[in-house]
Amino acid sequence: MDAVALNTIFRAYDDRLAELDASASTNPYARGIAWIAGEYVPLHEARVPLVDQGFLHGYQTYDAPAVWDGQFFRLDDHIARLEASCARLRLRLPISREELKRLLAEMVAKSGLRDALAEMIVTKGIVDTRQLASDTVINNLYMFAKPYSWVMRHGMQQTTGGSAIVARTVRRVPPGAIDPTAKSLQWGDLVRAMFEAQDRGATYAMLTDGDGNLTEGPAFNILLVNDGVIYTPDRGCLKGITRECVFEIAKYSGLTVRCEVVPVDMAYHCDEIFLSSTAGGIMPITSLDGQAVNGGEVGPVTKMVMSEYWAMHYDSKYRLEVKYTD
Amino acid sequence: MDAVALNTIFRAYDDRLAELDASASTNPYARGIAWIAGEYVPLHEARVPLVDQGFLHGYQTYDAPAVWDGQFFRLDDHIARLEASCARLRLRLPISREELKRLLAEMVAKSGLRDALAEMIVTKGIVDTRQLASDTVINNLYMFAKPYSWVMRHGMQQTTGGSAIVARTVRRVPPGAIDPTAKSLQWGDLVRAMFEAQDRGATYAMLTDGDGNLTEGPAFNILLVNDGVIYTPDRGCLKGITRECVFEIAKYSGLTVRCEVVPVDMAYHCDEIFLSSTAGGIMPITSLDGQAVNGGEVGPVTKMVMSEYWAMHYDSKYRLEVKYTD
Repeated sequence: MDAVALNTIFRAYDDRLAELDASASTNPYARGIAWIAGEYVPLHEARVPLVDQGFLHGYQTYDAPAVWDGQFFRLDDHIARLEASCARLRLRLPISREELKRLLAEMVAKSGLRDALAEMIVTKGIVDTRQLASDTVINNLYMFAKPYSWVMRHGMQQTTGGSAIVARTVRRVPPGAIDPTAKSLQWGDLVRAMFEAQDRGATYAMLTDGDGNLTEGPAFNILLVNDGVIYTPDRGCLKGITRECVFEIAKYSGLTVRCEVVPVDMAYHCDEIFLSSTAGGIMPITSLDGQAVNGGEVGPVTKMVMSEYWAMHYDSKYRLEVKYTD
Repeated sequence: MDAVALNTIFRAYDDRLAELDASASTNPYARGIAWIAGEYVPLHEARVPLVDQGFLHGYQTYDAPAVWDGQFFRLDDHIARLEASCARLRLRLPISREELKRLLAEMVAKSGLRDALAEMIVTKGIVDTRQLASDTVINNLYMFAKPYSWVMRHGMQQTTGGSAIVARTVRRVPPGAIDPTAKSLQWGDLVRAMFEAQDRGATYAMLTDGDGNLTEGPAFNILLVNDGVIYTPDRGCLKGITRECVFEIAKYSGLTVRCEVVPVDMAYHCDEIFLSSTAGGIMPITSLDGQAVNGGEVGPVTKMVMSEYWAMHYDSKYRLEVKYTD
């Protein structure tokens, strides 16, 4: 898919966004919807029990599929990952996988949101702190959907790209302490990295493993392009579904991907850098630690991957239609 | 103070607990009270906004002073530590220190709880995730008090002591990722250690720093006694206020304390092990990885420290009276 086609996709999105904004006075869910214990409420009115161990000790996991142009994108992959995260943390979905899919789709349909990020949060539930390891507790599920948001806005993705730092005041939590492959809302290290990015006049923070290798940033994977090969860390980070899309795009485009240990130094000597996230897609980094990457321009591999990524959103193989009632 | 005096203190506590249980039908706060946005509610009815970043990305800190026999114990130390934790995490108390103390005391008074653990949780508040590093957000405060609970019940402290493991499947989060001196509800590593303790038939888990040194466990510091000297880790752990009490007791008892790097191996070759926590005080460990510590008996230094610790609760220097209305 070429850049013109990508512009068309984003222009249609902007039109839908304008419609959404216009609907805010009549649709109570235009700014988001939440599903709490079987009830739907506007997102900003949603409340969770203070004594839920998801709040009280951060004992939770989650996943966040996107809805694009009225269709879930790779929903089954997100649900499969949520189940895997639960298993690692000794949590269980309190409802079946099919019921979860049905409720999630019902929630998005009810919201009227055509472009959304949905979140399914599974928490330990209500149990005494001394019994946190007990496996007889019924876990809680909270869900919400909000208008699709951008880790990097699409206009910036197509023009200037973003500025990043490699965090030097904080490292990523090691897998031996908190497993980054089980998606977690415990962002202590990631928030510290966001402080540092802000302090250093940049927007995005990439974290190392403390041993000189790249891991990931707040809600995104890191990918480097060097001599036509894509490099991305194999450990210390989430197995991103957007990154999985990049792997598939690379495969049918004849590009090699090396998912392995990536020394941080490579980021300073590579041809292109981009980030991947369900919340934003493919996000070019054109400045690292204040120095231009690829001469400060979005690179050709990044552009190609970005176009193909959004084209995938219109491939029926990855889509599940939301049945809106209006 | 001798063991007889300690028995008297705990017997009086048991009597107050029986009174509390008897009051449950008339006191809506007998099982706990929460202060949420200026309103008092029974703890189990308390709700927090789902979109508060304290829940949504674990961006919070807290502190938890105890009330014992109708008096706060070392409240100023807990509030000072909360302020220090906030500063490290770029949070600010939304009310003054004096107002916080006043409201906390009012909440406990209203609950009628004579023996309680109070919690003050400061969260980032409601802000878009992309703005997590913004410093213009007004942070939120949530408070609650619940009946005093025991990491190790006092009867067990005085008789058998508890069983512990050194976790081998998980390490403590390094300070370079998440700073353990800023008290946090992000318990990912600590919960994994609790799993392992349960799997290995023990109750308490001690975590290493991943480099062969002890750190702490879920809500407690670790102290070893060897040849009459007390050893406790200087980094990778919270600066516990109960542990600070141990330092003071050691000083006036003529015992040496060495707060320094403590190799995990020392735990297998020392005379006594005990844990310290506001929620439980001084907790003897008499079994480590299935092997007896001090012949499986609570040791003399541990006993002395335990008695002195509870005696401190009746020293006016450390107390602040709760003005109950009944």
